[in-house]
Amino acid sequence: MAIRTPEQYLRSLRDGRVMYVDGKKVEDVTRHPALKPAINLGVLLYHLYQDPRFRPLLVTQTEEGEDAPFIFKRLRNAEDLLRRREYILTLARICYGAGGGPCYVGPDALNALTVISRRLDRELKVGYVERVENYRKYLLKNDLALAGAITDVKGDRSLRPIEQIPHKDFYVRVVDQKKDGIVVRGAKFHISRTPICNEIFVSPTRAMREEDKDYAVSFAVPVNTPGVVLIAAGQEHFEEDNFDEYPVSASRHTAEVLIVFNDVFVPMERVFLNREWPYAAQIARMFGNFHRLYADTYKYADLEIVTGVAALMAEYNGLEKVEHIRDELAWLVWYTETVGILGKAACDNCVVEPELGIAYPNALYSNSAKFLFANYYHEAIKYVQDITGGIVADLPSFKNFLSAETRPYMEKYFQGKAGIPTEHRLRATMLARDISSSWVQGTTIHAEGSLSAQKISLTAIADWEKYKAIARRAARISDGSEHPLTRDLPLFPPKWSP
Amino acid sequence: MAIRTPEQYLRSLRDGRVMYVDGKKVEDVTRHPALKPAINLGVLLYHLYQDPRFRPLLVTQTEEGEDAPFIFKRLRNAEDLLRRREYILTLARICYGAGGGPCYVGPDALNALTVISRRLDRELKVGYVERVENYRKYLLKNDLALAGAITDVKGDRSLRPIEQIPHKDFYVRVVDQKKDGIVVRGAKFHISRTPICNEIFVSPTRAMREEDKDYAVSFAVPVNTPGVVLIAAGQEHFEEDNFDEYPVSASRHTAEVLIVFNDVFVPMERVFLNREWPYAAQIARMFGNFHRLYADTYKYADLEIVTGVAALMAEYNGLEKVEHIRDELAWLVWYTETVGILGKAACDNCVVEPELGIAYPNALYSNSAKFLFANYYHEAIKYVQDITGGIVADLPSFKNFLSAETRPYMEKYFQGKAGIPTEHRLRATMLARDISSSWVQGTTIHAEGSLSAQKISLTAIADWEKYKAIARRAARISDGSEHPLTRDLPLFPPKWSP
Amino acid sequence: MAIRTPEQYLRSLRDGRVMYVDGKKVEDVTRHPALKPAINLGVLLYHLYQDPRFRPLLVTQTEEGEDAPFIFKRLRNAEDLLRRREYILTLARICYGAGGGPCYVGPDALNALTVISRRLDRELKVGYVERVENYRKYLLKNDLALAGAITDVKGDRSLRPIEQIPHKDFYVRVVDQKKDGIVVRGAKFHISRTPICNEIFVSPTRAMREEDKDYAVSFAVPVNTPGVVLIAAGQEHFEEDNFDEYPVSASRHTAEVLIVFNDVFVPMERVFLNREWPYAAQIARMFGNFHRLYADTYKYADLEIVTGVAALMAEYNGLEKVEHIRDELAWLVWYTETVGILGKAACDNCVVEPELGIAYPNALYSNSAKFLFANYYHEAIKYVQDITGGIVADLPSFKNFLSAETRPYMEKYFQGKAGIPTEHRLRATMLARDISSSWVQGTTIHAEGSLSAQKISLTAIADWEKYKAIARRAARISDGSEHPLTRDLPLFPPKWSP
Amino acid sequence: MAIRTPEQYLRSLRDGRVMYVDGKKVEDVTRHPALKPAINLGVLLYHLYQDPRFRPLLVTQTEEGEDAPFIFKRLRNAEDLLRRREYILTLARICYGAGGGPCYVGPDALNALTVISRRLDRELKVGYVERVENYRKYLLKNDLALAGAITDVKGDRSLRPIEQIPHKDFYVRVVDQKKDGIVVRGAKFHISRTPICNEIFVSPTRAMREEDKDYAVSFAVPVNTPGVVLIAAGQEHFEEDNFDEYPVSASRHTAEVLIVFNDVFVPMERVFLNREWPYAAQIARMFGNFHRLYADTYKYADLEIVTGVAALMAEYNGLEKVEHIRDELAWLVWYTETVGILGKAACDNCVVEPELGIAYPNALYSNSAKFLFANYYHEAIKYVQDITGGIVADLPSFKNFLSAETRPYMEKYFQGKAGIPTEHRLRATMLARDISSSWVQGTTIHAEGSLSAQKISLTAIADWEKYKAIARRAARISDGSEHPLTRDLPLFPPKWSP
Repeated sequence: MAIRTPEQYLRSLRDGRVMYVDGKKVEDVTRHPALKPAINLGVLLYHLYQDPRFRPLLVTQTEEGEDAPFIFKRLRNAEDLLRRREYILTLARICYGAGGGPCYVGPDALNALTVISRRLDRELKVGYVERVENYRKYLLKNDLALAGAITDVKGDRSLRPIEQIPHKDFYVRVVDQKKDGIVVRGAKFHISRTPICNEIFVSPTRAMREEDKDYAVSFAVPVNTPGVVLIAAGQEHFEEDNFDEYPVSASRHTAEVLIVFNDVFVPMERVFLNREWPYAAQIARMFGNFHRLYADTYKYADLEIVTGVAALMAEYNGLEKVEHIRDELAWLVWYTETVGILGKAACDNCVVEPELGIAYPNALYSNSAKFLFANYYHEAIKYVQDITGGIVADLPSFKNFLSAETRPYMEKYFQGKAGIPTEHRLRATMLARDISSSWVQGTTIHAEGSLSAQKISLTAIADWEKYKAIARRAARISDGSEHPLTRDLPLFPPKWSP
Repeated sequence: MAIRTPEQYLRSLRDGRVMYVDGKKVEDVTRHPALKPAINLGVLLYHLYQDPRFRPLLVTQTEEGEDAPFIFKRLRNAEDLLRRREYILTLARICYGAGGGPCYVGPDALNALTVISRRLDRELKVGYVERVENYRKYLLKNDLALAGAITDVKGDRSLRPIEQIPHKDFYVRVVDQKKDGIVVRGAKFHISRTPICNEIFVSPTRAMREEDKDYAVSFAVPVNTPGVVLIAAGQEHFEEDNFDEYPVSASRHTAEVLIVFNDVFVPMERVFLNREWPYAAQIARMFGNFHRLYADTYKYADLEIVTGVAALMAEYNGLEKVEHIRDELAWLVWYTETVGILGKAACDNCVVEPELGIAYPNALYSNSAKFLFANYYHEAIKYVQDITGGIVADLPSFKNFLSAETRPYMEKYFQGKAGIPTEHRLRATMLARDISSSWVQGTTIHAEGSLSAQKISLTAIADWEKYKAIARRAARISDGSEHPLTRDLPLFPPKWSP
Repeated sequence: MAIRTPEQYLRSLRDGRVMYVDGKKVEDVTRHPALKPAINLGVLLYHLYQDPRFRPLLVTQTEEGEDAPFIFKRLRNAEDLLRRREYILTLARICYGAGGGPCYVGPDALNALTVISRRLDRELKVGYVERVENYRKYLLKNDLALAGAITDVKGDRSLRPIEQIPHKDFYVRVVDQKKDGIVVRGAKFHISRTPICNEIFVSPTRAMREEDKDYAVSFAVPVNTPGVVLIAAGQEHFEEDNFDEYPVSASRHTAEVLIVFNDVFVPMERVFLNREWPYAAQIARMFGNFHRLYADTYKYADLEIVTGVAALMAEYNGLEKVEHIRDELAWLVWYTETVGILGKAACDNCVVEPELGIAYPNALYSNSAKFLFANYYHEAIKYVQDITGGIVADLPSFKNFLSAETRPYMEKYFQGKAGIPTEHRLRATMLARDISSSWVQGTTIHAEGSLSAQKISLTAIADWEKYKAIARRAARISDGSEHPLTRDLPLFPPKWSP
Repeated sequence: MAIRTPEQYLRSLRDGRVMYVDGKKVEDVTRHPALKPAINLGVLLYHLYQDPRFRPLLVTQTEEGEDAPFIFKRLRNAEDLLRRREYILTLARICYGAGGGPCYVGPDALNALTVISRRLDRELKVGYVERVENYRKYLLKNDLALAGAITDVKGDRSLRPIEQIPHKDFYVRVVDQKKDGIVVRGAKFHISRTPICNEIFVSPTRAMREEDKDYAVSFAVPVNTPGVVLIAAGQEHFEEDNFDEYPVSASRHTAEVLIVFNDVFVPMERVFLNREWPYAAQIARMFGNFHRLYADTYKYADLEIVTGVAALMAEYNGLEKVEHIRDELAWLVWYTETVGILGKAACDNCVVEPELGIAYPNALYSNSAKFLFANYYHEAIKYVQDITGGIVADLPSFKNFLSAETRPYMEKYFQGKAGIPTEHRLRATMLARDISSSWVQGTTIHAEGSLSAQKISLTAIADWEKYKAIARRAARISDGSEHPLTRDLPLFPPKWSP
């Protein structure tokens, strides 16, 4: 089929899928007002496919020479990763800091299985590699959009999957094994973009022990598969197409859902892990490796807006020369650009596994970027709010600006620095408010792996032997251990005599 | 009239006042849905007046022995301040962290003028003391609700009032002097509770120089005075009486407005400052002294909720034993209770000026409380969001819980710790989301004086001579200066011989 | 004996005690240069006893009407605690932020046993109350100085006392039970002021389980008891009586030691806990309650110097009007005075147990003070160093100022603001450097309970039921639980109809 | 001469230079104990020159094909910068986090003049390019060590050079113009490594106005020039060759000095700026561009030790599995590696000015690295001290371990985790203490440009137009401005119809 048109894409979403918003069934996801900002994100990609300026970045060629979506291309080296980053960044800049296009999580989960299926087959010879590659071809050929469903609902966080008390379905699991497939039950939560995708790719969210083995499952199904139910997450302050007051959040939304799997049948050729429990942890970790790159990159585009609106408000309020405002702006630049370059460094310094034919981002730098933006985001928002002023909380609605009766008051009294139209100051204020919502803050901490997950990742990844060897040398501790970095360093201080 | 009934109060707000919401004129402020949470706050006081458990706290007696609202009583000593604190705290706990009743700012501005009018009359003998006291009697006798209008719209923050460029009305000013009164023009912003008050008390927001003297003006007018126009501030996520999803913000709102003064005539007996520019700074500072107490106290009630919802979510998620969660809870307790005790310490250690017959809170502790809560609030919210989990951003709307079709999924999959009804976890999550809105964060930084204002206040208040004297003694610097604290301290180390 | 003279005190320290500094035995602790700053601290108290301005604060009367050291008086109410605070603060201000006099820890341990022995005897009737009170009388009568030895050396922090691997003596324990006493072995570390005390009071540092019961031991012995060995902690940059360069650290030192108990015999009348393991935790916690007050108070005196030297350096460098310097100073004032008032609030709001005849500080406020100063101290030092400038690291030694050859260069080039003698700027710089040493920072985090201990204490103390009840009410969660604070709060919003 | 031997280098420092330590003249800088750690740093380079493993990195070839020190090579592209980084990192790892070899600041100042002399000559044709290049050849040919003297003593920080009150010499200035040279007076402070260098390169520390033009001066002189006087900065806890207790600080020191210029004559061929005041700011900024790379790189080596000792102590104390310890370690890894990669990114993304034949580091990333390490260093130290435990403050001196009498106690009671020799735990503790000194902290904030300087640099460097354009687009503000990044971005949301 090659690359789809916007119309083909939209039509494909009208497939009988079962979805609820506010407790009511949605007839057509492409026509429900609450889903419009998500559809905006999704359809954008298909418009850009038609644009010769963007097509070379977004479209790749299959081995057969057919055009196909770049997002599903297997990543083999730093160039591929840098192109992926360029892809994400370009679309995120167009979409005000959100990844444009229908899917990122699904492709990253597919990438994780690409790596781990090779490792698994090498040991257990199940034949997963072939299934994964067939599925990849199917996606490339039909230009499908693939959601990625990783996070389970989890229940009591102190208990493992099998230990949960009220029921055993807090993590998606295999409840039946048929001859030609498996039956799965459970629910995945925080699953972005599912309503604007064609397929769902499921993989485990955590390490499993043997007793949890029914929960070690990975598979893919179409969104409209019987038994699949989507329930939309709530949204903060949404008004359809109110781009004045909600310039970012009314434009785009990643449409998180709860996906319920009510005893869903999955045919064997779409099963990529089936109780091989030791591989669950590997898949979860490798998924993270790929998905950090997405997070680091779109967040950089997001932070450019955060820093930009702070700079605008400082100017519009006449505060540009105030020292503490300048200090806050300096901090925001540091924060934004450090996130940006860490994401790029994760590509530049990627890990290539030639025997697997795959490359993945350097986890140290990609996790460092993620940790930086998640751990310090509230501080950034504090600065934006400080610079914007109390108006960020109390601005009369923009309808007052559009009303003939109240507009003169708005024009006169909300003017800031001379020469700046009042409307510009109002718009910048509305942007500042829109980007500092609690939704964004909660997302920043938790999306693509929580803050704790980052710390755990950093601890797991770090080259502790390097650090310890360096410290032992400095402390003159000789414990017989050796490290390549310190082994051959010359003696210091050197021997010399005055 | 003594104390009014709820009905009398509500009726008094239907007085022809000119108010706009979303650019449209409001017919009756007591019947407009957007104002309902504010009316909730206001009318509460009049209900409590009827409740014998609360009446002794809320009602005082005039010299003539008539019942009158305690809020307008002149504060003479620590007991009065502690009762004021108890008043604020009691109503704030009832109202989920917002000061219940219609007014706090106005009484604090009246208190400030009570002090400064005495100082001014002592020097200039204008007769302001009598005017202020007559006005106080009028308020007490008629049980009126008084808004306080302090903050101007300010225009370019780097310019003084007289230097503003597009026009000269960015700060409220006297534009004409009539025989029997003055004419004022300008606008005040962020003025809480005006729609639920009967009168507006205006006083300066900053120090003025001689060239700014037309801006050194203080006065009071009824809200329905010709030329007074109110424009409502926007509100985050409001749905009328949706106490499920917005348990705090749908219940109460402080109804900030822009108040425009379109060449409003003020009779001389309601003018409390009229171009005596050196007193503008004193009034602004003294207002702050009184108003911090309000801020410190209601915020303590607010932080009890913040800490409480964090504790609930930790329990409901099964996270109570996780060390970093416990550390965050410990920090929240420290933060909450330190804010609380600092506010109390400001009363316990108040400044009494017997010759003026007035007491005001200790500015060092009241500003320290304000600085603590404003400077660290984003950190508190980060912890609440971390503990609550990603559900704080993505929870499906509560309508899904109320719908027969989706409720089973919600019940099953949003269960947390066994034994906790799912509904409780959902409600606690909605509370966590409601209190972490950007509106609250912006308000926390800016309301009752911005973060910078706190730092400036602390610098202005601090007993620098004490600190320097102590440091000079430690550094063995003898510069001839003396300080009571260090002057008579014995030599250290003492002379002794082994 | 009543109150001792300085000479009597010094003589009492020459008692044959076994002490090592730098691996060498100390002949006479009152004549060893490394111990001079500690002796300075100790002997001060005896000088002040002779000073009629201080004697009323420092001296109390026994039931027999004899003068006796106030520090051992049983604390019965808020007045006693406030006097104790005044005692600590007065001596700490004299001694540049360290508690003057020989002892604080010992008396606090004695206080803890005073409370817990009553609880224990009520249940087990061992007769500890009488032993404790006899010992108190002995101390009062002979005006002895009492060290408190709480912290054990601990070995592997992840293991309990009985689980330790290389040997079992990482916590002090009973190794033999004789007819008339016990034999103890082990070592206590970080034990302040032991070299300047006459007696050592030992009590447990943590909760014990039944298997650890040999470690549940409390007792007192003279410092010169056979088998007791003291090894001095190192000191940062010490030069005897160099009050120019080390104005604080050369003046006073709290003389921490490792105390080794080499199978020391303790007679039964000095044993206050002997394997009653459930009481170990209670003693440790109650000791903390008393000892926080000491920490909060001397640290307040210490922070006055920190803030003072920052203010001096800002002035001397001509930086007083720079906004970020002013902000840092404002923060330091907030930090200092909040620590101060929290300590006072812990006394004002103390817990009185009339049936035990004892009062102890409010643990919520005393722990909040401790947490505040320990958690933010590095930030304070960062500000001091920022304000002082690079000179804090690079100042040529003061000997250059005292040398005729180099003084002219020092005078000319280290001048700051005109009118300030260069010497003053140098002295303030040396003070800034002296107070920001790593020793002070490490101590601030760890002394009187580590940072983690504070968080654990705050979590243990907090009134979680209050917070949860308040949050449940706000979230409209009805789970049948009741709390006095929320039970009778009226409905909000109230019922009213427009 | 090509490359010198260690002996030649040491001999060259015995040149009659005038230097004072503690107010006393130093006869021979190579034989004074206080300078030994600095000589250690310096002489190392000459030892490594002889080592075939290091020589290729450290030695370059002149155009004439002679061996010469790489450090003076003109940097032309990213490869040169990366090699410079490798040079710094290699030596810093050998020298426990300090740049090994005698000089870095001087070469960076020379590099700055290399750029700015070209700009200046293009406009004013003074002939500075030739002088600079001749001097470079002289340094290369003779393998000299060059100190860089930038920071002036500054006096009152609120006054410009010409405004200073007690005298006019707070910034180095030209006091006389002779036919063949100039006479300079003043003092430079914090000048690293001067005692171990042969020559001093002076350049301005700040922007100058026309009235300050006498202060716009750059030149070079030998260290032993008449009128040049060096006064050594103090050192924290120094004991000669005590590598046990001061493993880092006794090994190496950068020997900061105050350099006094007592009316020193400088021949014209060594004058590189002579009152051309507009270029002072350019030189200061360009010097910063080069010198950040040095700071970012050696600090990375330093932070590897910081993180390493934290990891060791966690292990030795048995704390590796405690969550908050793991979180602190994760933070340290993030901090260390982000500093590291930012420095590398500054090279990878350097600015090349082909027409000037020179490349310099990307200031955005190099300043971001510097800001990161300086702004968060105190937090890092807090974590190290928390992990190390109170022992970091109270460890008995290592002499106790070396003494037969006390060693058994030390061995037994300072053991940590089983299997780790006590000596290792002691050594790691001593390292932790050594690296957390106030000297290091002060240096971290102030060296290579203060914290404020970083914020000002970041503000100056940032691409504000980019950020503002991005924010304007998001806020739908059309003010006619254009930016390449946003100009051609397609409309979002795209036009589509459901």
